[in-house]
Amino acid sequence: MNAPFLYSQLVEDIAAAIACGSLAAGSRLPSVRRCAAERGISFNTVTMAYRQLEDRGLIEARPQSGYFVKSALGQPAQPLRHSPATITPTRESEQLVAMVLAAQAHGDHVNLALACPDGEHFYPADKLARLTAGLLRRQPGLVGRYALPPGPGRLPQQIARRGLALGMHLPPDDILITHGAMEALQLALRAVTQPGDTVGVESPTYFNLYPLLVSLGLKVLEIPTHPQTGLSLDALELLLAEKRLAAILAMPTVQNPLGCTMPLDAKRRLAELLRQYEVPLIEDALYAELQFGEALSPTVQSFDRDGWVMICASYTKTLAPDYRIGWLYAGRFAARVRELKFASSIAESALLSEAVGLFLEAGHYDSHLRGLRRRYAQNIDRMRGLIAAHFPAGTTATQPAGGFLLWLELPPQVDALTLFHAALAEKIVVTPGNLYSSGSRYRHCLRISCCHEMNERFVAALRRLGELAQAQASGGQPQIQ
Amino acid sequence: MNAPFLYSQLVEDIAAAIACGSLAAGSRLPSVRRCAAERGISFNTVTMAYRQLEDRGLIEARPQSGYFVKSALGQPAQPLRHSPATITPTRESEQLVAMVLAAQAHGDHVNLALACPDGEHFYPADKLARLTAGLLRRQPGLVGRYALPPGPGRLPQQIARRGLALGMHLPPDDILITHGAMEALQLALRAVTQPGDTVGVESPTYFNLYPLLVSLGLKVLEIPTHPQTGLSLDALELLLAEKRLAAILAMPTVQNPLGCTMPLDAKRRLAELLRQYEVPLIEDALYAELQFGEALSPTVQSFDRDGWVMICASYTKTLAPDYRIGWLYAGRFAARVRELKFASSIAESALLSEAVGLFLEAGHYDSHLRGLRRRYAQNIDRMRGLIAAHFPAGTTATQPAGGFLLWLELPPQVDALTLFHAALAEKIVVTPGNLYSSGSRYRHCLRISCCHEMNERFVAALRRLGELAQAQASGGQPQIQ
Repeated sequence: MNAPFLYSQLVEDIAAAIACGSLAAGSRLPSVRRCAAERGISFNTVTMAYRQLEDRGLIEARPQSGYFVKSALGQPAQPLRHSPATITPTRESEQLVAMVLAAQAHGDHVNLALACPDGEHFYPADKLARLTAGLLRRQPGLVGRYALPPGPGRLPQQIARRGLALGMHLPPDDILITHGAMEALQLALRAVTQPGDTVGVESPTYFNLYPLLVSLGLKVLEIPTHPQTGLSLDALELLLAEKRLAAILAMPTVQNPLGCTMPLDAKRRLAELLRQYEVPLIEDALYAELQFGEALSPTVQSFDRDGWVMICASYTKTLAPDYRIGWLYAGRFAARVRELKFASSIAESALLSEAVGLFLEAGHYDSHLRGLRRRYAQNIDRMRGLIAAHFPAGTTATQPAGGFLLWLELPPQVDALTLFHAALAEKIVVTPGNLYSSGSRYRHCLRISCCHEMNERFVAALRRLGELAQAQASGGQPQIQ
Repeated sequence: MNAPFLYSQLVEDIAAAIACGSLAAGSRLPSVRRCAAERGISFNTVTMAYRQLEDRGLIEARPQSGYFVKSALGQPAQPLRHSPATITPTRESEQLVAMVLAAQAHGDHVNLALACPDGEHFYPADKLARLTAGLLRRQPGLVGRYALPPGPGRLPQQIARRGLALGMHLPPDDILITHGAMEALQLALRAVTQPGDTVGVESPTYFNLYPLLVSLGLKVLEIPTHPQTGLSLDALELLLAEKRLAAILAMPTVQNPLGCTMPLDAKRRLAELLRQYEVPLIEDALYAELQFGEALSPTVQSFDRDGWVMICASYTKTLAPDYRIGWLYAGRFAARVRELKFASSIAESALLSEAVGLFLEAGHYDSHLRGLRRRYAQNIDRMRGLIAAHFPAGTTATQPAGGFLLWLELPPQVDALTLFHAALAEKIVVTPGNLYSSGSRYRHCLRISCCHEMNERFVAALRRLGELAQAQASGGQPQIQ
């Protein structure tokens, strides 16, 4: 057969497979090499066919990843409309968090809620266990040493080294080791606020910030956040000019739950605003090393010249959930957070932080991260495809810049809390949008974690969740299974 | 020789040795058995001689410990006079804590300040290291599990079991594992107070409470505390009746820094006051298992019937400083502290808490504690003898009921902060009394830790400290060494 025929044939085969759904939205096409081998045709022919399919809007190329069936699933196009208003979080929001946590305690439920892969297969658990056991063998006395801060050890140096890839020059002596990123956020907030102060946060934002802010007597101001470009700097500047914020807490790189990363210019402008208005930013960089793009977008801290950015992250999501090793570099507030750490929880375990330091020093971390990124990117594609196929018309889902979280906007008739309870009754746990704001703005939204193995059970749960949402969207009752 | 002569001879020998100082105040006499063997005389003869010396006021018998040269050193007899007044701790007190901490960072200094034995010889470090390594070998996947609270594991059960010896019936499911006792105190305070509230504390009290209370926006009310019987309940009741306290934070058993334990009746009355006025007590039981008495004095919690007592402790001072495993049972506030823990630092490492749980389960802890108690009691006696010999006339020191801390009241001419700096210049670190109150009430007091090996270097440092104090007391300059 001649090349033009082979080429058209391939285009039509794939187009038909997409049309009938046997190639689902979001799924990856075979690589050019593999397709050529399988069909016994040339690379060129396959490349031409793929380009043609791309031109027809049926597939899309993604850097470093290959070709994917283009999703019929739209992305949320803009922030839900709201004007910034000071909100004092209520006990209700805390109880909602407690309820969703309690739901996750059931080992036999399908957990689409937990934002952390649970299970050793996602971590170099064996290697870390060996490093830790080796430390115990060589230095059993480590157990009996009182860890006065800052504590010795190689971890701060390794954190500083890795910071370079995100554009940061962090002085190792001022990097405080914390009990996960959560304690880092807690200490940073306490360092720069007084009870009664107002803190600006993204909207939607990480749900566990609300109980934290409540417990510190802080008020919250939710700032509109674009699902693709992040924090609205225009809104932020207005608030800064009116002196309404004592601090800002944000995730400018791979935001939770939106997965978005602020454009470089926006990050630069944000750093400039902080300097101009002398207001600190607590930059949560938890997912910054899980960016999908080949070149990592630098942090806002990398544009900071006057120490107004306090940056934190942890190794909990990527390396050793059990070790709870996080860190905080607090810029001009470094001495203050060191004092607060001592008065709050003294110090971290030298054994655990040293084991993490040894792992990083050995250079294993980069290849591990590459594997995670690839896996999460695939999971997300697969999940978006499933959502497109099974969720009510009008549902949109984010296309995250990294990490493993998807944010869904469902048709307005769907109530996420009702959906949460309906799903829970069928042993499926999700996080309702209500958690991500102290208002009711996201009551038709959901966050779904794609950090688990996408097995049959998982896919069935997702499909069932879609059915439950469909039933709500059409005003009917879901079919009893 | 006949027995009466042998007996008188022994009495006079020992009396002479005490008089010339070759048997120092606080030092232990040889056991009856050993003395009899060494002198080739009968048990009875030695026993009679020791009783005669006791009658003459030269030595004293201590239960389970033997005979000791009676100390010329007095104990502080009553609380320093002051009326309770609300005090807002200042940044100054925080900076003082930071300064004393910084002084301890010098590895070549003699550290009489740190209230924690530093070094594996005080801990079953090898055994714990082996238990931890064994866990890692058998369950490397533990590293990769996300520790959602309350978390599984055997530690809460073991804590509940040990609580029985202190009169407590703690429900294991409500025992929260915390990052040392320090985080337990932090969470307990946040659970029952609002910024602006007033918390009652003992005076003097653990210095690290001041920065903690400041950082939470709390006011402090210092309650007179008797060096032998603890918190003044009359003063406390007055404050409770006036509704001036949102919570009380105290160490009714082996107080830091005084080392005193409240009498049983006082503990019972305290529990009754809490119930009557509906005010929570945060009971810090950090040293409760290091009581010297044969029968452990039960906690205030053991008298609690309505959940007003929140009790915490840790294994940091006795088992594994590096692991930072503490716990909190918060009575009626159990659900609240669980929420706060999650929003503050999520959870503790299951690896480390499980290793501690295994150690306790294996039954090693009691014999380890017995060894520590014996050692600390000896250190304290030795130290009191050295203080009597080398410190200015008029100096008093506590006779603690447990633990390893001594509280010294020096003559009023001595300024503890000046002494701190003079000692630091000679590489000796102590904690000045100023740290233990937000006022200047204890500016002539010192706390000294007796949890280190009492070697030559240590004794020389203590002697030098006495000389520096002497010089201040007599208004002169200390001799330059």
